[in-house]
Amino acid sequence: MNNRYCIIMAGGIGSRFWPLSKNNYPKQFLDILGTGKSFIRSTFERFLPVVPAENFLVVTNAAYKQLVLEHLPELHPEQVLCEPMRRNTAPCIAYANYRILSVCPEASIVVTPADHLVTNEGEFQRVIRTGMEFVEQPSHRNALLTIGIKPSRPETGYGYIRRHVAEDTTGEIFEVEAFKEKPDLATAKAYLADGNYLWNSGIFIWSLPGIQNAYRQYLPDMVNLFEKGRYLFNTPEEQDFINGMFPQCENISIDYGVMEHSQERYTIPADFGWSDIGTWGSLYEHARHDDCQNAVSGHAVLEGTHRTVVNIEEGYEAVVQGLDHYLVALRDRSLLVCRLDDEQNIKHWIERL
Amino acid sequence: MNNRYCIIMAGGIGSRFWPLSKNNYPKQFLDILGTGKSFIRSTFERFLPVVPAENFLVVTNAAYKQLVLEHLPELHPEQVLCEPMRRNTAPCIAYANYRILSVCPEASIVVTPADHLVTNEGEFQRVIRTGMEFVEQPSHRNALLTIGIKPSRPETGYGYIRRHVAEDTTGEIFEVEAFKEKPDLATAKAYLADGNYLWNSGIFIWSLPGIQNAYRQYLPDMVNLFEKGRYLFNTPEEQDFINGMFPQCENISIDYGVMEHSQERYTIPADFGWSDIGTWGSLYEHARHDDCQNAVSGHAVLEGTHRTVVNIEEGYEAVVQGLDHYLVALRDRSLLVCRLDDEQNIKHWIERL
Repeated sequence: MNNRYCIIMAGGIGSRFWPLSKNNYPKQFLDILGTGKSFIRSTFERFLPVVPAENFLVVTNAAYKQLVLEHLPELHPEQVLCEPMRRNTAPCIAYANYRILSVCPEASIVVTPADHLVTNEGEFQRVIRTGMEFVEQPSHRNALLTIGIKPSRPETGYGYIRRHVAEDTTGEIFEVEAFKEKPDLATAKAYLADGNYLWNSGIFIWSLPGIQNAYRQYLPDMVNLFEKGRYLFNTPEEQDFINGMFPQCENISIDYGVMEHSQERYTIPADFGWSDIGTWGSLYEHARHDDCQNAVSGHAVLEGTHRTVVNIEEGYEAVVQGLDHYLVALRDRSLLVCRLDDEQNIKHWIERL
Repeated sequence: MNNRYCIIMAGGIGSRFWPLSKNNYPKQFLDILGTGKSFIRSTFERFLPVVPAENFLVVTNAAYKQLVLEHLPELHPEQVLCEPMRRNTAPCIAYANYRILSVCPEASIVVTPADHLVTNEGEFQRVIRTGMEFVEQPSHRNALLTIGIKPSRPETGYGYIRRHVAEDTTGEIFEVEAFKEKPDLATAKAYLADGNYLWNSGIFIWSLPGIQNAYRQYLPDMVNLFEKGRYLFNTPEEQDFINGMFPQCENISIDYGVMEHSQERYTIPADFGWSDIGTWGSLYEHARHDDCQNAVSGHAVLEGTHRTVVNIEEGYEAVVQGLDHYLVALRDRSLLVCRLDDEQNIKHWIERL
């Protein structure tokens, strides 16, 4: 049990939830759904029955270190790893791997984003335990496991995993045939009908030796950069070393850098009420609705308004009338009013501000 | 010239421009149109070529006295008369009349709301002078003159004046046949087609003896209340007297209390670019428009938005997308998003907050 580690990737700056999430307060620190807990807090608590608190590592930007410690006061400051800049997930995970390597070379690791929603935490923990037990078997030392989500709709906002059709050995874990990019709607419908496609949750499980082998094979340049400081991890020199070498790391995701190439890829098709709450639309889907199908948080009066997300900062009040399927969000002296169906353009609008 | 006085009625608390105007900062103190001047400041400057600064009286609530003096620093504090409560226009005007009576019993007076828009100030001043000269003639000592506005559309938001069809003596001033309540649309269209109906601007001109005679005749109880303190006006006891007697005054408008009954009512049909800017819709009509017919003030980006009023407080920013003929106003920690056509219900929505 003490060999089990959890890496929480919490470096996102996410403009998709503007104006709620901004650079100084990104989504993982928000309680967008009104559950009483931020996403990062929920993520931590969700893994806590599987991984002891002292075996968590949170990788984030230096600017958010204090915020992470406020949300997760159980952590020692040294458990928060600071990237000097965003370099996508492959360097992020490599950094955490090397830190773990310095204390527990035989660790089994689960890697997770900090800002997902899970509604069935019991089933979630069962699935994570199943995955960790799988990669802890000597015969699966090089297995790279991705949690797959059984799709419930032809979602075009997620990447997909095509699992092997053949029966697997465990009854629950399948080999991966291919990773698929976000599909168009027709393709997503075909995936759903096919039955062998899963959503890529971005949650990975592997043994430390296994993922290290994969990095050495598929990202040797990155490994060479980290190896130069191999003995600096867990020492006072670690941060300086990282600050110096991180900019030289390739800006590449774990999916493109490792998973695409691996020959020992597995997935567990899971169903634990998962969403990445990556858009206001998905927030709308998961939020509590009033009689007119509105999702309201904050002090707001709605009149003749339907299927609309209204999110008003504390200390403000709002009257919203005559809208159908809109988003009205006021936070941090910024207001957004837009059609929910057009939210993919938020980034462009903000640029014009 | 020194017998000419101007009474500015500035006691309104106006919720129609919520959230811009609230109890602590009503419409007359706002620069809603972005002209660089508040309504009360514009009103004062508009009358200044006709009435000397020392002959202005502003009647307002005690709570706004400082605000009035900030907007009109030319005034002596004693020129700001404080009502202890709102009691509609008849008591308001009576109070100012008695103050003037104590210093200039033969005054001619123009009475005006504090929050109207006039675009042709030269023509406005000519009309006001014409009216004052009219009531200054001994033969028109009891004339009560209302400025009428030549209607340009079948407006249902204003009261109307039906002028006498017969030719008048001056070539410009007509007798009033009747005052009409705000009409429905069909009636408003008939008024417009008729050609003898004018909008009631709420601007009145009379001699002090003439209006005093009318009060004595039509509001004798109110006159009795004021007469008890006749010699207290312009003394240190004035405010205490007013505070004590004002609550006993009937809550009645000058229109219902006096004008309805008067036998010597006149009007000047005028055309000087007038609006009472009583609604967001009229604000929209008079504001500068962008290429999509939006009226925008503040730091806002509009996308796919048309015929919409966007009014964002300084220090805030907004993205507004996908609206047609809406109002988006953010001020003083309150947000309003509604259809412009439904703004008459703002009051009810605020009550629900």
